[in-house]
Amino acid sequence: MIEIEALFRITYGLFIVSSGDRNHGNGFISNTVFQVTSNPPQFVVCCNKDNFTAGLIGKSGVFSVSILERDTASDILGRFGFRSGKDFDKLEGMSIKYGQTDVPIVLNASIAFLECRVVSTIDVGTHLMFVGELIQSALLDNTKEPLTYLYYRQVKKGTAPKNAPTYIGGSKPEQPKEAGVFKKYRCMSCGYIYDDEKENIRFADLPGSWTCPVCGTDKSDFTEL
Amino acid sequence: MIEIEALFRITYGLFIVSSGDRNHGNGFISNTVFQVTSNPPQFVVCCNKDNFTAGLIGKSGVFSVSILERDTASDILGRFGFRSGKDFDKLEGMSIKYGQTDVPIVLNASIAFLECRVVSTIDVGTHLMFVGELIQSALLDNTKEPLTYLYYRQVKKGTAPKNAPTYIGGSKPEQPKEAGVFKKYRCMSCGYIYDDEKENIRFADLPGSWTCPVCGTDKSDFTEL
Repeated sequence: MIEIEALFRITYGLFIVSSGDRNHGNGFISNTVFQVTSNPPQFVVCCNKDNFTAGLIGKSGVFSVSILERDTASDILGRFGFRSGKDFDKLEGMSIKYGQTDVPIVLNASIAFLECRVVSTIDVGTHLMFVGELIQSALLDNTKEPLTYLYYRQVKKGTAPKNAPTYIGGSKPEQPKEAGVFKKYRCMSCGYIYDDEKENIRFADLPGSWTCPVCGTDKSDFTEL
Repeated sequence: MIEIEALFRITYGLFIVSSGDRNHGNGFISNTVFQVTSNPPQFVVCCNKDNFTAGLIGKSGVFSVSILERDTASDILGRFGFRSGKDFDKLEGMSIKYGQTDVPIVLNASIAFLECRVVSTIDVGTHLMFVGELIQSALLDNTKEPLTYLYYRQVKKGTAPKNAPTYIGGSKPEQPKEAGVFKKYRCMSCGYIYDDEKENIRFADLPGSWTCPVCGTDKSDFTEL
C-alpha cells in the first residue's frame, strides 16, 4: 500500500533553477536540488522532460539555483512555477545576475545562489537529473530563512505544478471551510484576483472546467488569499 | 568563488536509510532522499561508496527510508550517523519492521517510512545514487514534524559525518563562547558524557588528537549539551 501523506513528510527546499545565456534564458520553480558529493562539490537538479528550462540546460550545459526566502511573494512563485517559458519571457523585469558561464541567476527573493556546470545527465523516465559541478556560490542574505516545500504547502496553501517530481493529481492541501464567508482567490499564473463578493457566483461553486478569464489557467491553480 | 555558507541554505530532511534482509541489515543517517518522478513514484538516495549500507543496497537491491521526527534523540543520530555497521549491529535492540521485500525498516523516532526497489544505480564519484521505485509507504505519526538538517545544525548543534554528501571538514556550526562556565559534551557515537566540572582539564582545552575513552570517536564528533 502506498500512503501519499507519507511522501509529504520528506523535507525539500524551493528554488528557482535557471539556464540559458545573456540573450535567452528561463527558470522554473524546483523542489529537487541537493548536494551529492563534497569533493568535488556536485549538485543535482531534477526536471520534467517537457520543462522548457530542461531543454536550455541540455543545450547550454549550465544551470543556476536561486535559494528562495521563506516569504517569497506568490507572484514570483506563480511566474516561475505555473507558467511556461515557451510563450513568455519569465526573466523580463526580474533582477538578474549573469554567472561566470553567462548563465542567468535570478536574485529576486533569493537568499543564496549556486552556479553549476553539467557533468552528466541521467534519464529517470518522465524526468532528467542533471549532475552539475559547482563553479560558484554566494550567500546574499544572512538574515532570512529558506522557503521549504512544507511551509509552502501548509502556510501558503500551495500545490505542485504538473511537471514537479512530487505532483499528485488534486493534491491541494486541506483548507478550512467556513460557510457564508466571502473569499478572494489569486491566479498563480497571472495574479488575477477572483473576489467572491464582486461576483454572482462564489469561486468554490464554479465548475472545475472554469479557467482564469485573463490567462486561461485552470481553476485548481488558484490559491485562496 | 565558492561560499560554503550558501550551500547550507539548501533544505534537507534527515532520514535513516536501511538495507539488507531479516538476517543481516544495517542503516545510516542520510540527508539525501528525494522524489524524482511521480509516475511511477521513484526516489533517490545518495550514499558514500565506503558506506556499509551502500554495499547492502547494491547486494539486496532494496532500501527503506525512515523519516525522522524533529525531536529524534541524539543517541539514535549517533548510533546511525557516526558509527559503522562494519563492526557493530546497529539494528540490535531497535524497533524494526520488515517490508514486503524483507528489507528492515527502523521505526524508532520515525514519523513515516518508504520501501523501494532499486531500478538503477548512478556513480557520481565518491558517492552512488540509487534510484528506487516505491513499493510501499506509510505515515506512522501525523502529529510530529520531520527533522530537518537546518534544525539539526542550528538547534542540536550537529555536524555532518565524514561520508555525508554535505560534509565539510571542520564545518561545526558556531557555538557561543562563555568564559568560566563548565560544560558537558556528549559523544555522538556511544553517548559518553564528558563533564568539565568532573575533569582536571576542560573539554575545550583537550588536544585535537584526544578521542572518546569509551569508543574511540574523534573529539570533533562530540556535541555540547
